[in-house]
Amino acid sequence: MIGRVVVYGGRGALGSAVVTKFKESGWWVANVDKKTSELADENILVEGDTWVLQEEHVVNSVGAVLGGEKLDAVVCMAGGWAGGSPASKDFVKNSDLMWRASVWPASISASLAARHLKEGGMVVLPGAAPAVGGTPGMAGYGMAKAAVHQLTQSLACKGSGLPDNCLAAAILPITLDTPMNRKWMAKADQTTWTPLEFVCSLLLKWAVGEDRPQSGSLVKLVTEGGDTSLVCM
Amino acid sequence: MIGRVVVYGGRGALGSAVVTKFKESGWWVANVDKKTSELADENILVEGDTWVLQEEHVVNSVGAVLGGEKLDAVVCMAGGWAGGSPASKDFVKNSDLMWRASVWPASISASLAARHLKEGGMVVLPGAAPAVGGTPGMAGYGMAKAAVHQLTQSLACKGSGLPDNCLAAAILPITLDTPMNRKWMAKADQTTWTPLEFVCSLLLKWAVGEDRPQSGSLVKLVTEGGDTSLVCM
Repeated sequence: MIGRVVVYGGRGALGSAVVTKFKESGWWVANVDKKTSELADENILVEGDTWVLQEEHVVNSVGAVLGGEKLDAVVCMAGGWAGGSPASKDFVKNSDLMWRASVWPASISASLAARHLKEGGMVVLPGAAPAVGGTPGMAGYGMAKAAVHQLTQSLACKGSGLPDNCLAAAILPITLDTPMNRKWMAKADQTTWTPLEFVCSLLLKWAVGEDRPQSGSLVKLVTEGGDTSLVCM
Repeated sequence: MIGRVVVYGGRGALGSAVVTKFKESGWWVANVDKKTSELADENILVEGDTWVLQEEHVVNSVGAVLGGEKLDAVVCMAGGWAGGSPASKDFVKNSDLMWRASVWPASISASLAARHLKEGGMVVLPGAAPAVGGTPGMAGYGMAKAAVHQLTQSLACKGSGLPDNCLAAAILPITLDTPMNRKWMAKADQTTWTPLEFVCSLLLKWAVGEDRPQSGSLVKLVTEGGDTSLVCM
């Protein structure tokens, strides 16, 4: 076994690719999701109607499957998307959805990282490039992602509770090349979409300590003509 | 009557000072809070256990007291403070509290602004200077304020639903000179604390169209030796 990773959202499009990649590379993988991953070594199903109850359940369950061992990495890829400007009748409803879909998993992942990461470990959260500025047509989504970005910066500071020499980073895709995006944005320029394999390889590299960005980085993934480069923000 | 303003959080330390200032200057003032303001022309008491229910209640109630009139300004001064790093047992509990205390009022204020502001009006939200970077010892507070900052930027963009030529801004105090802060931080250097009167005068000036910053600005309030200057971020 190379190392131990928790993948939060390991049944999503990106998350399941991450689970596969780490398993193929010889890692022990625990999936935290509403659904079971057949590939993962352990599955923790998210339970609880409130943020506090979900966190208690996930943190305790991960502690139980670890049985005193430490984690090398916590990778949160849980999220979602919903639109709506502040003028939309769905603005608050969708802001609430986005908060639950993005900020609850990211903050519970931060709790897991603070409790279970080993020295030199890594925690990666799911940001979004557009939310570095205003996102008038998806205002709730932007607020949730901005919170995830700021949490990443908090995790990188002294006093966050992470062990020494850990990496805290967020990846900020513009558009990921997922089946859902191919379905809903079939006419878009897909040469600017970032392949899931690129993200998986990047995470694996960072997990083993290679080419890590500075902790606290918001790492934008810019894909042009099929090539992806990293821009630290 | 000079103009119409909704003050969200008009019974807080800063909010009640804002209500007083606008009333003294001849404005019609509606207070949105859990408690009634004796000074305000109208009071809308916040009701509802969920974000969606609170928004429906407040938006409908403000619409009713306006009776077809438009607002010149929406000023949200509602907030709160709770600490806790990601390693703290209170991290998620306090993050939830901060979300409800800061992001619910700010987003409902954004809804009010999109529905009821007149052309050239203004909406001001309550940010926090530390949340521009990481806030490891108050991680939930930082996430909530980062979301408010990003919402401010969304409101300033075309497509947010605000009428033309509106100002959307956030004020980012470092520490405000409030009775609570004097009580809890009695030994701190209070010459760097920003007087409430400064904030009230600033808001009134912007409300009548004087010296407005660029829309979308996060305006840091830097007080030194009793003098406060503005730094747009």
